[in-house]
Amino acid sequence: MAKVIAGTLAYTYGSAEVGTSPVSLKELEDLKVAVGFTAEDVQYLRKAGAVLESQTRQIVEHWRSGIIASIPNLARHSRTPAGEPIPKYLAQSNLRFEQWILDTCLRPYDQDWLNYQQEIALRHTSLKKNQADGVESTAYVPFRDIAAFVAVLNDTIKPYLGYGPASADEVDAMHRAWCRSLQLQIALWSRLYMDLAKAKNEW
Amino acid sequence: MAKVIAGTLAYTYGSAEVGTSPVSLKELEDLKVAVGFTAEDVQYLRKAGAVLESQTRQIVEHWRSGIIASIPNLARHSRTPAGEPIPKYLAQSNLRFEQWILDTCLRPYDQDWLNYQQEIALRHTSLKKNQADGVESTAYVPFRDIAAFVAVLNDTIKPYLGYGPASADEVDAMHRAWCRSLQLQIALWSRLYMDLAKAKNEW
Repeated sequence: MAKVIAGTLAYTYGSAEVGTSPVSLKELEDLKVAVGFTAEDVQYLRKAGAVLESQTRQIVEHWRSGIIASIPNLARHSRTPAGEPIPKYLAQSNLRFEQWILDTCLRPYDQDWLNYQQEIALRHTSLKKNQADGVESTAYVPFRDIAAFVAVLNDTIKPYLGYGPASADEVDAMHRAWCRSLQLQIALWSRLYMDLAKAKNEW
Repeated sequence: MAKVIAGTLAYTYGSAEVGTSPVSLKELEDLKVAVGFTAEDVQYLRKAGAVLESQTRQIVEHWRSGIIASIPNLARHSRTPAGEPIPKYLAQSNLRFEQWILDTCLRPYDQDWLNYQQEIALRHTSLKKNQADGVESTAYVPFRDIAAFVAVLNDTIKPYLGYGPASADEVDAMHRAWCRSLQLQIALWSRLYMDLAKAKNEW
């Protein structure tokens, strides 16, 4: 049973509210091969999850307050169109951000996971952003900024992976598995943005 | 003056044949901030270029023969629609692949670089794939496979960065700079695929 962080709202993983991903399990398998994701990575992600579990709050704080808050182009997505903070939105989406760390490490990458990847992507586009929390903020997060910020997520997670009993080699292996997973997720999310691009530009 | 590998065909960097990128220099600057790319990364990429310069052939061999060749879903993009090898295409695109390593490390990320990012993206889509070498192969490389394969490029480049005089910390810094650049490039390339998605799906 996967861990769910207490108090996380609008976290619908595995529920009937989540639609089916347009990506097939066969396409997911092909993508795993393309990123070099193996059964060993699954094991290292489990270990990473065990190390990160007690640190998710601190990590998301680091990303949000330590980095995103000082980049206006990114910070605006948690604020009103006028640039005012929306504390409720930040708090609720931070909890889901924490939960996403756990899901990345601990969930099996099966149909439910694939469906929730699509749900997460939807919540970054104009199709669903702001709805889960009933807020008014930017209409969407541009795909390019998500793709770009992956580099920051990858960089900054590494020290946290080292705060456990793992050797330096194991930390490297956990980090490789994490980076592969994020590249996989970016490839999956890009699908929705390209489907959307038929009608509008959210690059 | 940037180094150009002898014998590289259809390498039009900086020439009038290359169109202007639809991405502005301001958007590029914003993306640099989003990936965490700083002036220090530029310096580390220069150092990386110095270390990699004599190894580009071996690295591209590793990627092509050591990895891509054994993944049919990726290998097909250098082959005929019937799956036959096209040695000329492979040889010529390998040289450009080598040159891309050097350009990633050694070129200033200015308007010429931005324009050539768009040219490289074009050459992976149905708008321009196969044309530079006058071959018949797959019509395009799906965006998702490029985004995914970045994880492999990132993983496998690291040991090559270590074959120089740099300390382990410097190798880490060079590698971080490399990963940031690749995430930046993926974000840039996604623009063309989304523009294309208005008419066709090359996800």
